Amino acid sequence: MFDLHPRLAADTAFVADWAVSRVLLMDDARYRWIVLVPRVANAVELHDLTQPDRAVLLDEIVKSSERLKRLAVATKINVGALGNLVPQLHVHVVARSPRDPAWPGPVWGHSSAVPYERPARDAFIREFLNAH
Amino acid sequence: MFDLHPRLAADTAFVADWAVSRVLLMDDARYRWIVLVPRVANAVELHDLTQPDRAVLLDEIVKSSERLKRLAVATKINVGALGNLVPQLHVHVVARSPRDPAWPGPVWGHSSAVPYERPARDAFIREFLNAH
Repeated sequence: MFDLHPRLAADTAFVADWAVSRVLLMDDARYRWIVLVPRVANAVELHDLTQPDRAVLLDEIVKSSERLKRLAVATKINVGALGNLVPQLHVHVVARSPRDPAWPGPVWGHSSAVPYERPARDAFIREFLNAH
Repeated sequence: MFDLHPRLAADTAFVADWAVSRVLLMDDARYRWIVLVPRVANAVELHDLTQPDRAVLLDEIVKSSERLKRLAVATKINVGALGNLVPQLHVHVVARSPRDPAWPGPVWGHSSAVPYERPARDAFIREFLNAH
């Protein structure tokens, strides 16, 4: 049974359930930052997924990446599956630009999140869901 | 035409050419760190690859990840496609453990590499190629 890790639940807002991933928005208004969590119990590494689930996850990474590129001022999309602190397999997809606080370094571990105002967060989630 | 970015060439040693990726070893003896560079001209984002090339790249990420898990003392494999400094699409696959210098933070931008002694580097490349 799939349970979202409490740390991921605390740091993000729910966006949608896609075929393999729970889609979450990192609650940090300084970035446009999606987190994909495969709804597969006990998955830690990419190689813990079946080959078909991995292929769908990759499509979902690409879909997120293309949507962020359309919606955000993004010089580069960063994709990362780290999990040194939260073992549950999750993939970050982050729109990066020279004007963001961590540029050009990685966002992970850089600085504390600045939570969204609720209306701005809801508006971005709607935009993300409707971007095609 | 595919040309390896000079920064990637300077920081790594050649391991092999797989179906889609040039496989490189990051020349930093403190980590077991593979870099996969799809041999596709002008690719910057994952979504710049065709769907079939992406699928093969994912297989190559998983193959690298499984081999590193077998060869290194790895608590976690970190996979990342950042490219904020080097635009050419490349994917890091890094074996991480609580005894490495950057743990639990990301390796990217953490500290300067400590190059391998040549025999140790060649030995690890051989091990990696022979791990099944």
